[in-house]
Order: sequence, then structure tokens, then C-alpha cells
Amino acid sequence: MASNDRVKVAVLGASGYSGIEAVRLLAGHPFVEISVLTSEHYAGREVAEVYPHLAAIDLPPFEELRADVLEQRADIVISCLPERVGVKTVAQLVNSGTKVIDVSADFRLKDSATYHQTYGAEHPAPHLLGVAVYGLSEFNRRELREARLVANPGCYPTGALLGILPLIRRDLIDPSSIIIDAKSGTTGARRQAAIEQLFAEVNENFRAYKVGTHRHTPEIEQEIGAILGREVPVMFVPHLLPVTRGILTSIFMRPRNGTTELDVRAAFETSFAKSRFVRLLKPGMVPELKNVRATNFCEIAFVLERRSQTLCVITAIDNLGKGAAGQAIQNLNLMLGFDEAAGLLAPAPVP
Amino acid sequence: MASNDRVKVAVLGASGYSGIEAVRLLAGHPFVEISVLTSEHYAGREVAEVYPHLAAIDLPPFEELRADVLEQRADIVISCLPERVGVKTVAQLVNSGTKVIDVSADFRLKDSATYHQTYGAEHPAPHLLGVAVYGLSEFNRRELREARLVANPGCYPTGALLGILPLIRRDLIDPSSIIIDAKSGTTGARRQAAIEQLFAEVNENFRAYKVGTHRHTPEIEQEIGAILGREVPVMFVPHLLPVTRGILTSIFMRPRNGTTELDVRAAFETSFAKSRFVRLLKPGMVPELKNVRATNFCEIAFVLERRSQTLCVITAIDNLGKGAAGQAIQNLNLMLGFDEAAGLLAPAPVP
Amino acid sequence: MASNDRVKVAVLGASGYSGIEAVRLLAGHPFVEISVLTSEHYAGREVAEVYPHLAAIDLPPFEELRADVLEQRADIVISCLPERVGVKTVAQLVNSGTKVIDVSADFRLKDSATYHQTYGAEHPAPHLLGVAVYGLSEFNRRELREARLVANPGCYPTGALLGILPLIRRDLIDPSSIIIDAKSGTTGARRQAAIEQLFAEVNENFRAYKVGTHRHTPEIEQEIGAILGREVPVMFVPHLLPVTRGILTSIFMRPRNGTTELDVRAAFETSFAKSRFVRLLKPGMVPELKNVRATNFCEIAFVLERRSQTLCVITAIDNLGKGAAGQAIQNLNLMLGFDEAAGLLAPAPVP
Amino acid sequence: MASNDRVKVAVLGASGYSGIEAVRLLAGHPFVEISVLTSEHYAGREVAEVYPHLAAIDLPPFEELRADVLEQRADIVISCLPERVGVKTVAQLVNSGTKVIDVSADFRLKDSATYHQTYGAEHPAPHLLGVAVYGLSEFNRRELREARLVANPGCYPTGALLGILPLIRRDLIDPSSIIIDAKSGTTGARRQAAIEQLFAEVNENFRAYKVGTHRHTPEIEQEIGAILGREVPVMFVPHLLPVTRGILTSIFMRPRNGTTELDVRAAFETSFAKSRFVRLLKPGMVPELKNVRATNFCEIAFVLERRSQTLCVITAIDNLGKGAAGQAIQNLNLMLGFDEAAGLLAPAPVP
Repeated sequence: MASNDRVKVAVLGASGYSGIEAVRLLAGHPFVEISVLTSEHYAGREVAEVYPHLAAIDLPPFEELRADVLEQRADIVISCLPERVGVKTVAQLVNSGTKVIDVSADFRLKDSATYHQTYGAEHPAPHLLGVAVYGLSEFNRRELREARLVANPGCYPTGALLGILPLIRRDLIDPSSIIIDAKSGTTGARRQAAIEQLFAEVNENFRAYKVGTHRHTPEIEQEIGAILGREVPVMFVPHLLPVTRGILTSIFMRPRNGTTELDVRAAFETSFAKSRFVRLLKPGMVPELKNVRATNFCEIAFVLERRSQTLCVITAIDNLGKGAAGQAIQNLNLMLGFDEAAGLLAPAPVP
Repeated sequence: MASNDRVKVAVLGASGYSGIEAVRLLAGHPFVEISVLTSEHYAGREVAEVYPHLAAIDLPPFEELRADVLEQRADIVISCLPERVGVKTVAQLVNSGTKVIDVSADFRLKDSATYHQTYGAEHPAPHLLGVAVYGLSEFNRRELREARLVANPGCYPTGALLGILPLIRRDLIDPSSIIIDAKSGTTGARRQAAIEQLFAEVNENFRAYKVGTHRHTPEIEQEIGAILGREVPVMFVPHLLPVTRGILTSIFMRPRNGTTELDVRAAFETSFAKSRFVRLLKPGMVPELKNVRATNFCEIAFVLERRSQTLCVITAIDNLGKGAAGQAIQNLNLMLGFDEAAGLLAPAPVP
Repeated sequence: MASNDRVKVAVLGASGYSGIEAVRLLAGHPFVEISVLTSEHYAGREVAEVYPHLAAIDLPPFEELRADVLEQRADIVISCLPERVGVKTVAQLVNSGTKVIDVSADFRLKDSATYHQTYGAEHPAPHLLGVAVYGLSEFNRRELREARLVANPGCYPTGALLGILPLIRRDLIDPSSIIIDAKSGTTGARRQAAIEQLFAEVNENFRAYKVGTHRHTPEIEQEIGAILGREVPVMFVPHLLPVTRGILTSIFMRPRNGTTELDVRAAFETSFAKSRFVRLLKPGMVPELKNVRATNFCEIAFVLERRSQTLCVITAIDNLGKGAAGQAIQNLNLMLGFDEAAGLLAPAPVP
Repeated sequence: MASNDRVKVAVLGASGYSGIEAVRLLAGHPFVEISVLTSEHYAGREVAEVYPHLAAIDLPPFEELRADVLEQRADIVISCLPERVGVKTVAQLVNSGTKVIDVSADFRLKDSATYHQTYGAEHPAPHLLGVAVYGLSEFNRRELREARLVANPGCYPTGALLGILPLIRRDLIDPSSIIIDAKSGTTGARRQAAIEQLFAEVNENFRAYKVGTHRHTPEIEQEIGAILGREVPVMFVPHLLPVTRGILTSIFMRPRNGTTELDVRAAFETSFAKSRFVRLLKPGMVPELKNVRATNFCEIAFVLERRSQTLCVITAIDNLGKGAAGQAIQNLNLMLGFDEAAGLLAPAPVP
């Protein structure tokens, strides 16, 4: 495909962890061209000076964020700006007809009151909450194909919902029993200087944080509730792993009376029949972070434990892949009518 | 204390991970002397040749295991031999009046049928099952002071039971609701060559294993059941962390109606009132592996989450410390009438 | 390109670390098709059962090694079998006209006496030593294009020679002064169970090994000597890093009188003028393992330190990429007349 | 020893990495009592709130730095304040007769011009440069016993000089040939937020930095020069390891004609005859970071490689132990007339 025919993509906040991952993935995408990269910190510098691993790729330099420039030079925008930083720009772009995928949490919650409660501030553009499509690709393909604004799911919600929604849809579990024990690599946090993210603090360590109070909880509950038609609280406990990438999520649920392993397997198979990224593992195999690292894949396995009447579903994703930049590009593919998997099928480098 | 007055301790299987940790800890113990170290693999070699970090300490060389020698040269024996390998020796020693702390799983289960089912073989010395005292020090001090044979708890059961038993004792939770999500460093497995334990397999990876089927499950259930007077199944899911030492255990339970945070805190405070090793953290703090590494300490915190009606208790121990060699020496202290904390109070090296 | 037009490639020893990396890279190669994968250990099993990260790729199952089968089903063979294990098969294949790239050390040394001395055995196929082309791609392109048998360089020699040969060619350093301090990730060793490769032994540790006696030394000396026309001993000290992939090599040399920074830079620029994989960094930048991970790239930087009259050249490669499977495919591209970089340009996943 | 008889020690900058390590070590010291802990950041807070691993130890809270308070409440002061931050306080304390061990670089260089050149500023208290004793304990015991102010050596200089000085003393090597390739864990840098120290930047990575320009170079040269009576430049290249603690230093030198292995061994044995912390390893063994972690020990080995006429000496220390807090306490012991090893003999926790 000649360069002229390629769709022009801008990445905002391109020098952060999810931003630079989007750049890496887009660089290998057959149908797009990276036209603008913004970075507050590195504006004016060549990408290869900051990220030498991209030196072999022809890229525009980092530049400052200007919405009017973006309208002219980009057909679609992936915003990896932090919460609230990009809202105004996103709103302006959407208004002017530029498609946007927002990787931040800004447009994920449908309810502005919940947003206020969760993020501690009025939503700066509540009129767009109804416009935004929640970008959990496997469950919203139809809406995503028409979307002008996609709210890319959080990394934890992605790992959790892929393991829960198929069961909710088939009513195989008691929705009031959901417990989510998630473990994330450090790039789940932004690339910014912080004592608690120093190597010497994270290495050889492991801990939970924000037990029962993490901001991704309402997002998970919203999507479960959307299927059920009513609110259901979940218990969500995130942990910090001494790895760079990856989220392993163990989800514990009480199965409905009569739920069998075949039911559970069928539910996953149906929900993910068309998905090339979700791998339902055979009995006896377990999801592993290494198998999905640097990819958009998700591994899922489950055990229905009879003695304790507990269904344990385990999912593995890369928080920067399916949990951020990978899913953003999957959504971009859907929005632009491309093959959903375009540019996203390279396997993980193992070991 | 003159060397002659010190109690003579033998460590069997001293070249493995828990064995050499016992040696390190005993080397700093004020009231004991290491008199025998056995190692099948390194018999005849000086300890410092294999473990140079112990070069500054005066130690006997590794030697072959001979029960008759042990009877003569040791007052008390810590056996770190693998499951079933040490049973015969342990039985002979106990019969001849030598006190034994068995770090293996051989004498933890009271019921020989459960043992058979769990470990796939007849118990080789069932007559000792009733003699052995379960060595969860905080809960069995009186029995441990009189014990001839101590079954040192498994690493996972230690991390789980310290978080569960105080609540069971006070009937604060529904015992049928217990879900244990545990994450262990690699030294939870023996020091033996195995592909799945290679650095390149574990590093930058994370996964569950033996979901709902781990051999430590009956041990956990036995100790909960002993308080309740009836069997209760628990759901137990272990994971493999890319760290060398440490187990973080997140335990999810449904609180009884009316259970308050004060009740939970009071339960822990009462159970551990006399314990110098269990640290109940203030609200807002979380257990971290780094804070207990290379020690016999256990950190505990809890969150009573009202929306989902879930009590989450989190514990952190070192699997080689409180989960193996540390607790073995704590038990030795109890058995010999020493200060329970003798030799065990050095803080973790942080960072 | 239709599948029928693709060149058929077999990978021998495909389940080891370099083998499975070759599979991953070949799976994304535009002009080849993987036709045979052999594995002694996993023969008969689907690749995805052993390596789930490759599940989305259509691959033949692992099978036993049979030379006659290979002749029929492969146009070219990449052998990742261990030293000496594959020699007979390689010889048979070469004799029958199948092109072979041998990733082992079997055909790297030109001199059978040096081979004997280094590897402790007679060379099993000395008649092929003269046939084999040393596959340091950047320096032997012409010979590689005609080669029937390529001896793929060792990982350490690759990292060292890329930093040394350009300077030897221009006579910019005293060849008797070469000191190589190399640091490798653990996948430099084979994927086999070994205590010293366990996570708990490597993690949070760092050490040298085989100081001045490593088997890659004669290989390095051979290639330096080939330019000089005489033997020159080098001092080579490898170390084991607690990372999965990557070799960082610091090379210290005494510059000739009058050698300037411009001379050194010009030497590298000339040697690597046509190379798309070697990145000579700007002054002030340093090679980093992360920037070349999972790639065939090599980063090079140097400092000419006047006070001590020392030239320090630093190179970074991935031991499984440019140090093994990546370079094997680069050589395959040369041997088959493809674009040298075909299938090899995906950037490292950073972070 | 009753608390009243113990020597009162203050630690300044006690909440940083070397400061809190000093606290940990002093807490187990038999003859001292920690009387004051200062921390700019945490003043007013209990130590256990910030560092729960020290919860079992009775410690004063962090407080602000006030020199007059220190004079009254401390007999000796260990300053872990950063370069230049503590100079004024140290000067005041020394003037008032309080003994000080300064872990910063402030008083290591004897020559104020070199200081200016290296640290980019006039020395704030040049009159003390002649007073300060360089605290490389093994080589300056006599002076240290009388010292009022000790300049604790840098971590890199400690690792390098222990491997070099014995050879210089015996004239076994050509001093103009010294090349030092050092690899440090991340706690060699201060505990402060910095992008380049984030887990995701350091993990699975390895790189050199400040090649030939690191500030520790003049310190190394000063101590070598002090023996030789003349200046000698050395080539020093530090690297950043993905480990929390430890420095492995490989030193390459040209042996004098006729220098034998016996000479080298004898040189080390003589220099370290009285040292309980330096372990000269047997031939065939190599220093490992794990063996010295969290200790004041140093492992040393060497190889005299005949072919390339290179002597390679390798040393391993813990940068926070022998490289900072451990050596500070070793110096404290010398200054106060205690057993040099008091409080410092606990072996490394391995694994």
C-alpha cells in the first residue's frame, strides 16, 4: 500500500509507556501511517534520541500538542494522555469529526456522578459520555465499527471482564460473589518518577494496594451491571508484581446450581468464537504472563472446584498490549473497517 | 554461654534451601551449637566450599545421614529432608528419645487416610501421627513445649492459617466461604534441577499452578476443622512469583452478619498478643514481602469491604523463614524452654 | 507470496531457546515457510502445547530428527542442536545438497586441532571445516551468498567481533591489548535443568565464570587473526546477568599512537555502512540490552579515554537474536538471495 | 551491657538507603545505642511507619537535623547525607569534638583542586581535608583508631581498591595498565525519584554509564597514587545491574615480568591477614554478589592469564554494606576501640 493511501494516525502522549507501545505496534501496521507524535516532555526531539529501539523506523519527531494541527494531520487519534489532561483536546477533535481512541479513564464511566465520586472532580465533558463507546473489543464490535470516540478499557477491567462477562451472559454464576485478585507489572503505572516505583522498591517485593478501593472497580461493575440490568458490587484487589509487563487476574465466583464445566467452556467458546486474540486454554494448562507479553493476546483458563463450590477463572494479558495500546489498535481496526487483527499478530518473544 | 553448655542441634538435608537457612539462623543462635549437618549430595565437603557465605562460621562438614550417629551427637534434630525420605530416620530418632522437628510434610496430617490420598502412598510411620505436634507456633505453644516430634507447618498453610484461625476462633466469618489466593517465591520448591524453575522460565513471568489441587489444601483444612470440629473445604490457588523468597497470601471470606472491623482487629490482637513475630499493621498499610524477607516475621493487614460483604486478610511471610526454617527454630526454642524469639529477631535487610 | 512459492525451512532442535526463537522469527518472515520442526524431547507434540505463545501460528508438530526426511521436506535447514549432536546430520544434509546453517559451535573453528583442544574431542567431520563459512553476516556477505554450510557465530564472539574487527581492519588499536568483559543473560546457556541456572541461584546475583578459559575465546581469536594474518591472544571474561536475554560487551584496547575519535567512528561507519542491524550510537549515548531485546540489532558506542590511553567499545546484542537465531535468519536471507533484513526489522518491545 | 554504658550513635540522613542500612546494622551492635535519627523528608514520624521491617526494634523517631542537638545527644555521628548537604554540620560537629564518619564524598579527596574539578564547586570546608582519614578500613587501621573525622570510601572505590592496593604495594603490576569494569546494583544511587531508576527502566536491562568520567575515578587514583608517590590514571567504567544490592568489580592489569600466581596470592594474604571481612577465594571459585549481600564481607579471586599476559582480579561487595554502612560501622568500631567486627558478622541470607 502506498504511503498516500495509508490512514494517518496521531498518538498523543506518545513518550509514555502505553504511547510508545502504540508507536511500536503502529510501526508494523500494514494500513496506517504515523503522522503526529506528541510529548510534553520531549517536544522537539527525535524519537530515536529518546527511544533508540525505534531508530530503524521512519517517525515524525515528538511535538507539542495542538488540536488544530491534529485535525489537519491525522485521520484518527490515539490519546495516551493521563486522566483529564487530554479531555479538552479529545472533545475538540470529536466535535471536528476526527475519530479518537482515548486510552485514559476519561470516558469509560457512563455516569458522570460515578465519575465524580471515583475521580474526585466534575467530568469536564459530560456531553461526550453518551457518545463514547466502551472499547472492550470482543463485546462491542458493532458499536465500535460506528464509533467516533472510543473509551479504551482500563488494563485491570480488561483482564477481569474477559473472564467474567461470558459467564454473566449465560447466567452461570452468582454475580454477587465475584472476587477479583489481580496482579500487575509496574508499567500499569505511568512513566513518572516516584519512589514507590524505583527498582529497589519493587524488585524482590510483592504487595497489594488500594484493597477494595481501586478506581477501576466502578468500571468493572458498570460493564457487569450493563448485562445484568442492575448494579452488582465486586471485590477487587490489585497487587504490584516485580515484572515490567503483564496482568494475571484470578477471579473467584460461586457457580449457579447445576453449572458444569461444559457450560463454562461453552460460554467462553461462544463469546470468543470470532476472537483471534483470546486463547481459551485446554484443561490442565494455565495462563502465563510470558505467553502474552508484548502482544494483544489474552489467555484464559478455569477450574470449577466442586468441594468448595468455587469457579476460578484466570486470565493473562499484557497491560500495555490488550490492556492498553494493543486493544486501542484493535479498536482502531474496527473503527476503520480493517481486519480486526491487522498489525497485531506477532507472537510474544518467549523466553 | 560456653560451647559445652549449648544444646547440640543437627540439621538433616542441610544443603537444601530450608536446610541452609536453618544453618544460617542457628549460627546466630545464642543457646545452641550446630553439631551435625547432613547432605546426600555434598557429604564429605566443607560447608564453605558449597556455601561461601558461611565461610566465617565454624561449622562441621556435610556428612552422610546415619541415625545412630545423630542419636549420639545431637540433642535435637531439624529434618529438612524431602517428603518420605526422612521418615524412617525421624521415627528411629523419636523412638530413641531424640527430639525432632520435621520440616517436611510427613507428620502434618493427623489422618493417615488423608495422607494416603494426598501424597499417594501409605504413611510409613502412622503410629507417630498422633505423637507429632503441629508446629504453628502461635497456636500450639503449650503442646510444643512438651513435644517430642514437631511437624513443622507448610509454607502456604503458615501464611494462610495465621490470617484465618483468629477469625475462626471468634466465629467472625463463614467458614464455607474461604478463598485463598497465595503467591510464592521460587524457593518454595526444592533446590533441584527442573526446567520450570530455570531463571529464563520464571523471570518476567507469573502463573498459577495446581489450582484447587495443591497438597497443602488438606493441611489448611485440617487446622481450620480442628477448631470448628468439622470439615470445611477451602479454595486454595497458589501462584509462582519471580522472587526468591516470600509468600503473600490474600484470603477472602464472607464476614458473619454484624462482624465489625473492631471485631476483626480484636481477634488478631488477642491471638497474637504474645507473639513477637506477627505484626498486625495499622489501617492503610499493606504487608510486603520485603519487610519479612530472611526473617521469622509475619505481617498481617485486613480490609472489611462493605459493598461486596467481603473480608480480605493479607499476610506476608518468608517461605524459608516463618514458612520453614525460622518457624522450626521458633519451635525448637519452645521445645527447649528458651525464649521463643532467641536467635530470630534480626530485621529484614531492606532494601 | 503463495505458500507454494515459499522456501521450505526446517529447524532442528526447535524446542530449545535459540530454536524456538528461530521459529518465532521465521513465522513472521515473508518468503519462507516452516516445513519441519524437530525436537528430541517433544517429538509428536503440537508446538502450541509446549509453547502456547505460538498458538496463533500454523506450524508442523515437533517430530524426531531424520536426515532423509529433511532432504525431502526442506530447502534449507537451521540446526539449533547442541555441540556434536547434529554433526552427522549436518554432514549428510550438506552432502546431499541441502543448505545448512549450524547455530552450534561445530563448524566455527577452521582448525581441527584447535577444535580438539577446545571441545575435547576429535572433530567428527573435519572435511567440512573448509566448506563452512563463518556467519558473521556484516563481514562475510559475499561468501555467505554462496555458502552451502554456514557456521553461525557464537553469541559472545558476535558481540565482541562487531566491536573489534572494524578497528583491526584499520589498524587503529594494538591487537595484543584486547580485553573483553562480557555479560550475558541466562539463555546463553541451553534450556536444560541445572542447579546453577535455577531462578533462586541467578536472581539478585552476578558473577563471572570461566575467567580466561571460555570456549568462545579461540573463536574470537581466529577471526581477529584472520585479518591480521597471525595469532593474537585476547583476554575474555564472561559474566552471568540476572536477565533472560542480552549480552553487553565492554572491550578495552590500547589505541595506536595518533588514533582519534574520528578514526574510530569512521572505522565503524565504513564497516557497517551497508548494515541495517548495527546502530553506531551518537557520542554520549550508551548501548542498552533493552533496546535490542528480541531483535537482530546491535548497538555500538565507544569512548576514547585520553588519560589512561584506553579505547572502550561497548556493544549490545540479544544473545538469541543477533547472537543466534536472528543472525541465522540474516544468513539465510543472504544464502537465499533475499533482502538481508527480511523478517528481522521488528523493533524491541520497550519497556 | 546496660543501655547507659552504650556509646550513643546518631545517623544523619537515616531514611535513605545507606542510612537505613546503618540503622539496621547498628540495631544489632552489642556496644552502641542509636540515639538520634535525622531525616529531612520524614522528620516527626516513627521509623516503623516508614520502614516496617524495623518495627520490632526500639528506635527514636526521625527528626530534623540540628547540630547542637547532636553534640549533646550523640558520642559519634554517621552522616549519610548527600554530597555537600552535610558539610557544615560535619564541620561544626568535628570542631566541637564529636567524632564523625561521613559516608558522602565530601572529605574523601585530599586535594581541594581535585575536589573542585570533580564536584564542580569549591570545597566548603577545606581545612578539614587534612583532618579526615580515608576509611578504607583494611589499609588505615592505625589512623582510623585516632581519627576525629573519617571519610568513608565510595562504593566503587572500595570494590576496586581492595583488589588493586595489595598488588601495588608489592609492585606486582604495571600501574599504568589498570582497567576497572564495575557493575553495581541500583542502590548505588540515592533513594530519590528518577525516571532512569524506575523498575521498568532497569529490569531486564543492563548498560554502562559515565564511561571514563565517573566521579569515583579521582578517588581511586588518589589512593593508588598515595602508595606509588605519583599520579596514575586508571580507566573506570561503571555499569548498572538489575539487582538491588552489590558491586562486582573486574579489574584488569598487566603483571610485572616474573609475577607469579603465588606472588599475587601472597600479596592478598598479607594485606588481608588481619581482616575478618575479606575472603580470598580458592582457585576455581568466583566472587558472587549473593554471598556478600547485606554484609560487610568482600570476596576476592584472581586469574593470571598467561597467554594475554593479563591479571584479572574480581571483587564482590555489597554497595550498602562494605561499600557504605557496613564499612562505616567497621570504622566506628576502630575509632571507638571496639572489636573491628562487632555487629558485622551475620552471614548473607542465601538464597
